[in-house]
Amino acid sequence: MSSSLGTLFRISTWGESHGPGVGVVIDGCPPRIPLTVEDIQAELDRRRPGQSKIVTPRKEDDKAEILSGVLDGLTLGTPIGILVRNTDQRPSAYTEMQQAYRPSHADYTYDAKYGIRAVSGGGRSSARETIGRVAAGAIARKVLQQTLGGYECLAYVKTVQNIEATVPAAAELTSALIESNIVRTCDPVAAEKMIELIEKIRTEGNSVGGIIECVVRGVPPGLGEPVFDKLEADLAKAMMSLPASKGFEIGSGFGGTTLTGLQHNDEFYMDGDKVRTRTNRSGGIQGGISNGEEIVFRVAFKPTATVLREQKTVTNTHEDTTLAARGRHDPCVLPRAVPMVEAMVHLVLADHFLRQRSQMG
Amino acid sequence: MSSSLGTLFRISTWGESHGPGVGVVIDGCPPRIPLTVEDIQAELDRRRPGQSKIVTPRKEDDKAEILSGVLDGLTLGTPIGILVRNTDQRPSAYTEMQQAYRPSHADYTYDAKYGIRAVSGGGRSSARETIGRVAAGAIARKVLQQTLGGYECLAYVKTVQNIEATVPAAAELTSALIESNIVRTCDPVAAEKMIELIEKIRTEGNSVGGIIECVVRGVPPGLGEPVFDKLEADLAKAMMSLPASKGFEIGSGFGGTTLTGLQHNDEFYMDGDKVRTRTNRSGGIQGGISNGEEIVFRVAFKPTATVLREQKTVTNTHEDTTLAARGRHDPCVLPRAVPMVEAMVHLVLADHFLRQRSQMG
Amino acid sequence: MSSSLGTLFRISTWGESHGPGVGVVIDGCPPRIPLTVEDIQAELDRRRPGQSKIVTPRKEDDKAEILSGVLDGLTLGTPIGILVRNTDQRPSAYTEMQQAYRPSHADYTYDAKYGIRAVSGGGRSSARETIGRVAAGAIARKVLQQTLGGYECLAYVKTVQNIEATVPAAAELTSALIESNIVRTCDPVAAEKMIELIEKIRTEGNSVGGIIECVVRGVPPGLGEPVFDKLEADLAKAMMSLPASKGFEIGSGFGGTTLTGLQHNDEFYMDGDKVRTRTNRSGGIQGGISNGEEIVFRVAFKPTATVLREQKTVTNTHEDTTLAARGRHDPCVLPRAVPMVEAMVHLVLADHFLRQRSQMG
Amino acid sequence: MSSSLGTLFRISTWGESHGPGVGVVIDGCPPRIPLTVEDIQAELDRRRPGQSKIVTPRKEDDKAEILSGVLDGLTLGTPIGILVRNTDQRPSAYTEMQQAYRPSHADYTYDAKYGIRAVSGGGRSSARETIGRVAAGAIARKVLQQTLGGYECLAYVKTVQNIEATVPAAAELTSALIESNIVRTCDPVAAEKMIELIEKIRTEGNSVGGIIECVVRGVPPGLGEPVFDKLEADLAKAMMSLPASKGFEIGSGFGGTTLTGLQHNDEFYMDGDKVRTRTNRSGGIQGGISNGEEIVFRVAFKPTATVLREQKTVTNTHEDTTLAARGRHDPCVLPRAVPMVEAMVHLVLADHFLRQRSQMG
Repeated sequence: MSSSLGTLFRISTWGESHGPGVGVVIDGCPPRIPLTVEDIQAELDRRRPGQSKIVTPRKEDDKAEILSGVLDGLTLGTPIGILVRNTDQRPSAYTEMQQAYRPSHADYTYDAKYGIRAVSGGGRSSARETIGRVAAGAIARKVLQQTLGGYECLAYVKTVQNIEATVPAAAELTSALIESNIVRTCDPVAAEKMIELIEKIRTEGNSVGGIIECVVRGVPPGLGEPVFDKLEADLAKAMMSLPASKGFEIGSGFGGTTLTGLQHNDEFYMDGDKVRTRTNRSGGIQGGISNGEEIVFRVAFKPTATVLREQKTVTNTHEDTTLAARGRHDPCVLPRAVPMVEAMVHLVLADHFLRQRSQMG
Repeated sequence: MSSSLGTLFRISTWGESHGPGVGVVIDGCPPRIPLTVEDIQAELDRRRPGQSKIVTPRKEDDKAEILSGVLDGLTLGTPIGILVRNTDQRPSAYTEMQQAYRPSHADYTYDAKYGIRAVSGGGRSSARETIGRVAAGAIARKVLQQTLGGYECLAYVKTVQNIEATVPAAAELTSALIESNIVRTCDPVAAEKMIELIEKIRTEGNSVGGIIECVVRGVPPGLGEPVFDKLEADLAKAMMSLPASKGFEIGSGFGGTTLTGLQHNDEFYMDGDKVRTRTNRSGGIQGGISNGEEIVFRVAFKPTATVLREQKTVTNTHEDTTLAARGRHDPCVLPRAVPMVEAMVHLVLADHFLRQRSQMG
Repeated sequence: MSSSLGTLFRISTWGESHGPGVGVVIDGCPPRIPLTVEDIQAELDRRRPGQSKIVTPRKEDDKAEILSGVLDGLTLGTPIGILVRNTDQRPSAYTEMQQAYRPSHADYTYDAKYGIRAVSGGGRSSARETIGRVAAGAIARKVLQQTLGGYECLAYVKTVQNIEATVPAAAELTSALIESNIVRTCDPVAAEKMIELIEKIRTEGNSVGGIIECVVRGVPPGLGEPVFDKLEADLAKAMMSLPASKGFEIGSGFGGTTLTGLQHNDEFYMDGDKVRTRTNRSGGIQGGISNGEEIVFRVAFKPTATVLREQKTVTNTHEDTTLAARGRHDPCVLPRAVPMVEAMVHLVLADHFLRQRSQMG
Repeated sequence: MSSSLGTLFRISTWGESHGPGVGVVIDGCPPRIPLTVEDIQAELDRRRPGQSKIVTPRKEDDKAEILSGVLDGLTLGTPIGILVRNTDQRPSAYTEMQQAYRPSHADYTYDAKYGIRAVSGGGRSSARETIGRVAAGAIARKVLQQTLGGYECLAYVKTVQNIEATVPAAAELTSALIESNIVRTCDPVAAEKMIELIEKIRTEGNSVGGIIECVVRGVPPGLGEPVFDKLEADLAKAMMSLPASKGFEIGSGFGGTTLTGLQHNDEFYMDGDKVRTRTNRSGGIQGGISNGEEIVFRVAFKPTATVLREQKTVTNTHEDTTLAARGRHDPCVLPRAVPMVEAMVHLVLADHFLRQRSQMG
């Protein structure tokens, strides 16, 4: 289904950006997992507009309501419904878009597919759809924290356009470090430059992209499936389903194609009674299955398609025209994409954890 | 499920490399599609070992038998079963691997997951598993050719290590050009260098990787789903499920992250009565849905993990040891990965074509 | 998944009886189907408590809100979210049930499965869960009416305990006839007796069951799948998933087991250019696939498990005890089960219609 | 998918009756389950034609070959492929059927659905399709025996036409008793009468139906899902997907509709530390979830559609005609349906066992 993800920890998101609300239903969540609305709200707050000067100033509170599946702070094992009402609906700000297809948006392809479209606010193709993902991800994370001892997932902005962050040693790479700056990068010096660039780009009515890197710790060996549902394949799908993503690579990635096998292979060694690898070009996954090392991958995000400068395009009645977007948009999606990337990791891993437990006991 | 792919055009592969055989069942194929065993064999022959001097010299005929679902050259609409018997089983060549985990292979992770493993020949993690994919892909291709007028999928080797092919103009990029050299690249000059490099690397007992690029033509606007099952997400998953793949990017990919929105956006224009884009940084997909332009993506393949030189590793009883692979292996997987990439494209598109027809009529 | 149904027209229900609300998400609905909240409300009103003197007097308005997927009276092709707030929450009426397992209810098995349970109002095992089904069924019905010319689904009460309705000739079996009495039977004379029996049983604090028969018209030949997802198999599952159902039979059903093959077979004949059968012991489905005749099946519903008389049972701390239910319950579920049966038919057929269109075009 | 069943223990059958063979792929089977080809063959032998004087005399050896997923007598956790070659292909015996639609068979509906059909031997609608089910069921049974202590599933013929078996006390109802007669009933006296009836009916070129009852022991409380995938709903679907089945009822079934709630409810009591019910009108399942009592259900099978007497019908070119079947057919499907019913129970329960383990650990 287009709007469902997962085999056992299964989520279904719904909602248009300027309709009554957006939300998600999570089916298959284990029972008796501690869960409060604050667990969910904390992640939504990292995702929401208006949180800093470098993201869209749209005022969207994005308050979550748990509609089902939780009682007295514990999950019931039944479907968890979550609703976030839409509040900041300003259809008037988008009038021209009813006619003109925004370049590199989904306006034209939605019309081509469905023959109908919720024009206002981007409808279903709006990034508001990710609210359901982030809310569900917060629940998946609770499941993983409860069942896998030291589970931790840290995404951070690696590059904005040509500015690259230096990644510190593992011990210093913490959530606190990443959240210490509004870009959500792991390098405070680069953070300053990135903020400066994003602010400049915004004043120009332009936009920039970049790369998010993600490190996942505490995943035991054995998660994943060996053929089509390889762990890296499901992560790739999850990341490539995020708005504006254009690429995914794990471990050595594209750069690894210039090494030889002897250079690239990760030698095994015994670390006490634990099988470890000296290097991690595999990115924590071999043959589709986790090997107990850190899972490390990167996702490329294109520059935001919405720019406040005139561009050529066509109308929905197939006339050539021009369009300059108005309204309030993110000049760079990456700071808000960090919690989205993490949410997708939680969802994929919770699903694979349940799959592993199902078959292997 | 680990070994099934697709929602409506659904395949299930099975088989270990040194068991009785490998194969696939395809469920959901439309009826009355012309199909012969030769359609399938032709693609298996592009995939099989021993086809040229730069691939593994293992002798595997890989003769397909259609067990069901086809009568008098037409599909019946019922499940199509395909069987390829394993012939070249040489368990003796692999004895040491029963103890030592091969670096960057799936030996250790299979043991960690299942607590049991078909050691000989790599079992289920062998590239022989892709026989089922390529056979099913040949059928998916027939479906697409029958239903979409000018459907064509062309994968080719873009780089081997640091050697990069020059891609010719669209009109000159043909299947014949790609098949004119044993590397399956689109640049005869680069082909010579690539062949030379692969042969040199093989004599060193080493291996190399590279990048495959793929261009898909004749996909109408409207295929794909807008949220989780975005067309690029399903392509990413399909590619990242291939053995040795480490990265996927579509359109502008990772390189596009250094452009601004104004530089990156694909402006629309009318080409007669057809909506077109002047550039194709979107790679033919916008918001998860095809826009009618060529679908263009790239896949990174790591250097083959099997090298004939001694490496450090551990045994399955957790002792440090060393291992030098013996046997006959591919020094570079890319020439044989080309038909695999194409097969996965056929499978993803046939599935999305049926999904589109289901919902939209 | 426990709370999802359908392959292509896929619904996910959620909600506990005394939580914030109940609802459903429908994914895969075709776009541009006319749909208003009144279409949904009309069916919910046939399902809701308090509608007549023979059903539970609980006051539940069950007002539906469409949260997504519909714009200006047309479906968008994106997920349709529907919410019904719970209003009549009276946890105090159910206090004893926190300890004692109600006989023939799901209290004990929920505890055995989940180790936790929303005790108040039956939680997820309450018949309120069927609100999501009925709402989704109303949408499925619109899809079928829009795409299949003369689609019509008529369920009616065939028996209440030992009182059996006489089914009129096809031309006289109409929705108006069935809705003309509060039992929803097709025989006004039997209706009087049924009402009398139900009222008497209620005054005794007891309950009764019965059989619902369903006739589906306007289903073209060819819907259904030949092996596991046979049309009768999916209908059986749908009906046996309704609360209190204990049996399903199609066409000749259990009674047909006493006939010989010669007596039982439905002979074909040509009716103009249409292939018809003279009898319909097959119930409109042969080999899992509709044959164009009326689909006819019956569902057995047990007497309501809630009775206002003392019964022996055990507590959740495993002590023997007794329990006499209090509160407002249906002495007979059948009148309210009629729209539920119809909803499940709509859902199964809409799904199979999309599946047929997918594979066959 | 039409030919796949199960969420986690998932099977896909394939094969036409007169094609190269039939078979099944099982995905999701736990690893390290002891399994030999004899485990499978034993069940296939109970299913195969020619086993006694009251079934079809067709000579079909139905020898199973395990193609994958098993090594040295243990499952690997990877897909298990099973192949049974078709040997007794006698297309000539069926020539007339190429034109005439057999009454109450799937000939017409297959043509209506697919526009093409493997006419010879019934193609995919042949009961040979159940070979894959029975083979997979034998594996599911091993999984359940390995993981649930005293798991046992006993199906037996309850009635043939009007002859009804007396079911002995639980302690005397054994597999040995059922297998002691060729009808597979639990009553040796009734067995004689049933055999006599079936032989007489065969000599008349006619056929009879009947009812199979099934008792499942050793299922712990907690298996099943509470909403759509209720355990009784999945059993109903599984049974109604068997060829010739027309009805399903669990526990009190249709007969229970004439009781009042007070008569029908199963009171709980403590049996040592175990929660038990005094009666079992629920049939071992409450609210979709097993309660630890015996699961008891019944399936109605119609008289075999193939009769050797002339019947009216139409041709595939829509002309009225007559047809008298020739060839070797079962005058009564029930003796061979007993292992099919058991196989479907094993498959449904193995799937729900894995689902339970997934969510609840």
